[in-house]
Amino acid sequence: MGVKRLEDLGERAAIRKISAILTKGKNRGIGDDCAAIEWGDEYLLVTTDMMFRKTHIPAQMSPYQMGWFLVAMNLSDIAAKGGVPLGVVCSFGLPRKTTELFLKQLSKGVDACAVGFGTTIVGGDTKETDDITLCGTAFGSVKKTEFMSRTGACPGDVIAVTGSLGKAGAGYYALKRKSGEKKLAKGLLEPLPRLKEGQLLAQSQSVSSSMDLSDGLSSSLYQLQVLNAVGFEIRKSALPLASGLMMLSDKNHDIDPYAIALHFGGDYELLVTIRQMSFEKTKKALQKHGADLTAIGTVTQKKDIILVDDKNIKNLENKGYEHFKKHTF
Amino acid sequence: MGVKRLEDLGERAAIRKISAILTKGKNRGIGDDCAAIEWGDEYLLVTTDMMFRKTHIPAQMSPYQMGWFLVAMNLSDIAAKGGVPLGVVCSFGLPRKTTELFLKQLSKGVDACAVGFGTTIVGGDTKETDDITLCGTAFGSVKKTEFMSRTGACPGDVIAVTGSLGKAGAGYYALKRKSGEKKLAKGLLEPLPRLKEGQLLAQSQSVSSSMDLSDGLSSSLYQLQVLNAVGFEIRKSALPLASGLMMLSDKNHDIDPYAIALHFGGDYELLVTIRQMSFEKTKKALQKHGADLTAIGTVTQKKDIILVDDKNIKNLENKGYEHFKKHTF
Repeated sequence: MGVKRLEDLGERAAIRKISAILTKGKNRGIGDDCAAIEWGDEYLLVTTDMMFRKTHIPAQMSPYQMGWFLVAMNLSDIAAKGGVPLGVVCSFGLPRKTTELFLKQLSKGVDACAVGFGTTIVGGDTKETDDITLCGTAFGSVKKTEFMSRTGACPGDVIAVTGSLGKAGAGYYALKRKSGEKKLAKGLLEPLPRLKEGQLLAQSQSVSSSMDLSDGLSSSLYQLQVLNAVGFEIRKSALPLASGLMMLSDKNHDIDPYAIALHFGGDYELLVTIRQMSFEKTKKALQKHGADLTAIGTVTQKKDIILVDDKNIKNLENKGYEHFKKHTF
Repeated sequence: MGVKRLEDLGERAAIRKISAILTKGKNRGIGDDCAAIEWGDEYLLVTTDMMFRKTHIPAQMSPYQMGWFLVAMNLSDIAAKGGVPLGVVCSFGLPRKTTELFLKQLSKGVDACAVGFGTTIVGGDTKETDDITLCGTAFGSVKKTEFMSRTGACPGDVIAVTGSLGKAGAGYYALKRKSGEKKLAKGLLEPLPRLKEGQLLAQSQSVSSSMDLSDGLSSSLYQLQVLNAVGFEIRKSALPLASGLMMLSDKNHDIDPYAIALHFGGDYELLVTIRQMSFEKTKKALQKHGADLTAIGTVTQKKDIILVDDKNIKNLENKGYEHFKKHTF
């Protein structure tokens, strides 16, 4: 047995190793989308995320979009806990040869996303690096009674997602095949964090567990399943496929829209479990604000994840993206 | 006139360019050590800092020390505003080939520094990068009435520093010359954020401006001078040289301890200006808790920075480190 390296461990095992070492305070949140710090009747939510050009930034992403994405991915974690954002700080690691124009566009992107979602960039840092490395930290607040944890799902709960699935995947293939669909690419490059949806879900007090879908639906379900020691039964026909994804797969018959909706990461929607008796009321509360919530399955006692396709029942594959490990999708 | 790049602008001009673009909220703090977010009677303080192996991490720094340093540099910004830390989040950008042992040591380092200074690591992220890139974000709180801004210095105020100067510089030369002084290297590689000092200074309510000394004394004075539109008169003989620096320069006559104390960055001490009538009382308040505060000069009306050496008076050179630009020290 040789020396273990990150490429053998994968990102999630690495995080477990780190977590085992860290001294635990009275705060919750390690292994959740955000850290949650005690602050009177509220939690202060904090989340941090890093983007590195070679492993996270598609070649077609503009500096403006890099900035947008950095803020969006962090605000999405605040959204998943039902939080109201208070601010974002950004560290830009940039090469010496970076142009002033790049810096300005990047700054416009972080600003536009923050302001577009009701907050501001409150500070930051620039550092010299070999290749573009962007680090964002968002913070927000949520009433303790409304905090949506990753844990709490119970058998019988409805599994639901906000918005639609496969926007990022459709954007990826539109760019890859140069179909010229600029609008589709936006789904990949300029995701919209679901803050309004998260806050409405939190206020409904019907959510038993919640996380964002950045890693893809199958990967997120597997993460949630381990944390909650339950199982999930997903109805394939219920998955809310993005219209752009349908359009793309209509034109490209080799693209399976369900595979993308199930496994492709980058959709910054929310995945929640909701008490069955409260689901319809919660769905209507979101609808009133122009937001979609779609039931896609049920939490089960049996600890596996099943995909039901008409009469065909099989185990859902876990093919989401994980850092350090080779991407199998 | 060609395309302007970061190497032409330098880090501080780059930050001004970014700041000009960002939408300003009601919060204070851009251009200060921390962002300060409204939170009832308090400010929520947030600061972020990035380390990149090639430009920030000496070859002799162990993974444990990298972790320690990452947390210390962020807590130092909280200290400079008089804050009590609430938590730290860390993003580790690491190559695939990173060993599990490295990850564990790094985690022990961030944990030890956080816990050693009364807080914890509350969350984080690991990402795949080409070269080690560590990003930390610390947050804390301070009563609004005790917040120590970078602005507010008035002519007649005493200029003072906590602790001693040149510990990091002495460590740097000790390592460079392989003098085998492990203890000196700690001054460079394991700095101690001055949280206790910052809190005592804040409670004294006598501080008119404050920042940390990470960029070096001369560079910090020049930054403070621009923000406050005042001048400074520094007495060379008053500079509290670190004992390790004295020892090193006794053995190496080519090393000028004053040049190091004035220009070498990496001492995470605090630089403050204090109302003259309150200085002695404040100094005693720190002494009672075993902390040093040394007067090194006076704030002047004339907007220049003067170094007084016996009867010799000259302008202080601004030779601190700035990212992107070539290091001239």
